[in-house]
Amino acid sequence: MVPVSEGSLIPDGITIPSRRVAELLEEFSAFGARPDGGITRLAASKEDGLARDRLAELLREAGANVFVDPVGNQFGMFNLCDKGRATTEPIMMGSHLDSQPNGGRIDGTLGVVSALVVARILMSDRQRGHRFERDFCVVNWTNEEGARFRPSLIGSGYAAGRLTADEALSVRDDDGISLDEALIAIGYRGHAEVPRPAAYVEIHAEQGRRLENAGRSIAIVTHNWGAAKFEITALGEQAHTGPTPMDDRRDALLAASHVVVGLRQIANRWPGVVHTSVGRQLVSPNSANVVPDRVTFSAEIRSDDKAVLAEAEREAQRVLKEAEAATGVRLRVDQRSVRAGRPMPAEMIDRLEAASRRAGHEPLRMGTVAGHDAIGLLGYCPTGLVFVPSVEGIAHNAAEATSVEDMDAGLAVLAEAAFDLCGSAAERDPPNRPEGSCAE
Amino acid sequence: MVPVSEGSLIPDGITIPSRRVAELLEEFSAFGARPDGGITRLAASKEDGLARDRLAELLREAGANVFVDPVGNQFGMFNLCDKGRATTEPIMMGSHLDSQPNGGRIDGTLGVVSALVVARILMSDRQRGHRFERDFCVVNWTNEEGARFRPSLIGSGYAAGRLTADEALSVRDDDGISLDEALIAIGYRGHAEVPRPAAYVEIHAEQGRRLENAGRSIAIVTHNWGAAKFEITALGEQAHTGPTPMDDRRDALLAASHVVVGLRQIANRWPGVVHTSVGRQLVSPNSANVVPDRVTFSAEIRSDDKAVLAEAEREAQRVLKEAEAATGVRLRVDQRSVRAGRPMPAEMIDRLEAASRRAGHEPLRMGTVAGHDAIGLLGYCPTGLVFVPSVEGIAHNAAEATSVEDMDAGLAVLAEAAFDLCGSAAERDPPNRPEGSCAE
Repeated sequence: MVPVSEGSLIPDGITIPSRRVAELLEEFSAFGARPDGGITRLAASKEDGLARDRLAELLREAGANVFVDPVGNQFGMFNLCDKGRATTEPIMMGSHLDSQPNGGRIDGTLGVVSALVVARILMSDRQRGHRFERDFCVVNWTNEEGARFRPSLIGSGYAAGRLTADEALSVRDDDGISLDEALIAIGYRGHAEVPRPAAYVEIHAEQGRRLENAGRSIAIVTHNWGAAKFEITALGEQAHTGPTPMDDRRDALLAASHVVVGLRQIANRWPGVVHTSVGRQLVSPNSANVVPDRVTFSAEIRSDDKAVLAEAEREAQRVLKEAEAATGVRLRVDQRSVRAGRPMPAEMIDRLEAASRRAGHEPLRMGTVAGHDAIGLLGYCPTGLVFVPSVEGIAHNAAEATSVEDMDAGLAVLAEAAFDLCGSAAERDPPNRPEGSCAE
Repeated sequence: MVPVSEGSLIPDGITIPSRRVAELLEEFSAFGARPDGGITRLAASKEDGLARDRLAELLREAGANVFVDPVGNQFGMFNLCDKGRATTEPIMMGSHLDSQPNGGRIDGTLGVVSALVVARILMSDRQRGHRFERDFCVVNWTNEEGARFRPSLIGSGYAAGRLTADEALSVRDDDGISLDEALIAIGYRGHAEVPRPAAYVEIHAEQGRRLENAGRSIAIVTHNWGAAKFEITALGEQAHTGPTPMDDRRDALLAASHVVVGLRQIANRWPGVVHTSVGRQLVSPNSANVVPDRVTFSAEIRSDDKAVLAEAEREAQRVLKEAEAATGVRLRVDQRSVRAGRPMPAEMIDRLEAASRRAGHEPLRMGTVAGHDAIGLLGYCPTGLVFVPSVEGIAHNAAEATSVEDMDAGLAVLAEAAFDLCGSAAERDPPNRPEGSCAE
């Protein structure tokens, strides 16, 4: 049991269980487990389906009404209000169960299982007769990672209205399987509407070293870095690697390699301010004796500084032009998607900071370089994002870890936030966006 | 019918059919056909199995005894001698039916079907009562290309004793399937011994522009370029492409890209003398949001100049070291295989030149940059290699082409060479290596 600090909104007699989040993470790490301790649980894969099935079971056991929307987002709605019916605008918490290939066990799973434990805590209070102003909803968003299907943040992007269901369902993985087909195959192509939340809160590992370096357990995210992401195809000409004269070659892999090296040089120009990468590259026909005629690759540039991001993107255009000139290969930008750097809502930051202090953890404030569903929902509903430490800053790696103590700290903060945001019909003011509350 | 020049060894009444080689190429291009006119007929694939089945049928129809050795090399032995039994050292002609992914229809198929037509011509003379000093054998070597299975030249390498059957059969494709398993799946894991040839002659498209530029139809290959080939693994660390600080990253794809660019610069230092390439690259985990921890790639350096090749290889070592230093990634050379530049046997060059002149084609002499089975068999038996033009020098590409006239010219040269090398029991001296001849 996690000790409750002074000023806590957690009612007397309600316990915040210790180690429970870690135990659930351990259980879910079996779905897509790899020998090295990592997991490969790509969106809408068989392993993802098994993890979803287990989540649905746990949500129902905890008292939720479980349903799925057209793009596979999975919801567990907990009725906390007096009138015995769901509000239209619950407080929502969660994250995503999909992982990167050979990813870690923490990542999105932490946010989903932490939300589940918060729901159990709220329901235990409900069962004691307490009535809330808002219902509570646990969510597992589809394809946050953007590993199997691109773009990332598909589920929360659909909820926020950035993608239609048709757009989301028609994206295809590298084997040509659509998200629609993949969701049908695992039984998660639903029909429910997304319950529009009064507020959404997510807990996630930091994926960096700042909390660890500062010796803190909690950070409240204030904003996100901007990111420009590109899908690029290098179009060369297939030829024999032996006799074909070097001057006759139009080597798509050489062109792509120039871009990989050039993008890194852009990051070097603005140390700590610009991050660049190429993480995915498909070579065709990919035979030792054949000059590649086609390379598709995913490149990205991120920065916390809007003007620098724009200048870095212009530099990237120069890199592409120079690579084309050096190789005779055409570099076609098939897709450019931009995630603007934006602030999180000030009121949510303040409430989460207060929740963290009530839970006994003086929080840091920081931006997030990575995208998260809480970022994807910005502008759709008030969102908040809480970070706990990543051991050695490791992320998207089998060695990803967060200490049990930090998980418990994060759970305590979420529980404080949940009691605040769900409110009490008798004692507290309703939060923002009160329309649709069952507590009018 | 191709006209026969003065001094021809083709007996009166024996015709060299025109267009027949082109027709057979057309027929075989159906096995693994692609919509763009290219073929994908990887070694020991289902498509390769179907092509082999058809070849076996055609060989049997032409009167051959057809058999397969442990690594899938396919032989059609034609009895041309008096005594009604096979010699132990036949004259052998052929090439390979496997192709590159989206490769062309000419490549190895030309040599196999040309050898088949030569066999038919020899057998028509045999049926008229002519007796030869040597039998004739058509061969289809396994995995010449090195596309599905590496190294290349596996079948001829096994025949020449460079690889044991166990070594050859244990190589695996990128899906982990062994050559052994693949051959069993298509029914071409045989048990016969390789018939040791008295001489081996192969016809192949030049895969360059020299014949076309010179307006000639035939070249006799005098030697091969040296080649050093490497399988390299870049060993980095999987991380998040977003928050992971650039200085903390050990990006395997960045290291591999430095090598791709650096190898090209080595070729630029010796224009026309050094060819370099990276044709194959596998990225892991290959997700847009993950810094790759592992890239395996196939690199090669070729040169006609032994000293330059050695210096270029030292330069490549420097490129690897610099890439390691720039990226913090380890570059592990998993395999280095060297094909030395070697001369073809002078007597074979002379005999093939004479055959070309008898067929009415003044030949060029040239080296080959690419490896061929005739190169792989050097030192095992006397080998000869005949080139016909490649339209625009295109190779390993769906647009690969050789004119019907040039195919017919090549057939006529092969037929002249076959009548020379198989000899006549009554009229001519036996060729070299007479042991095992049935004509003692």
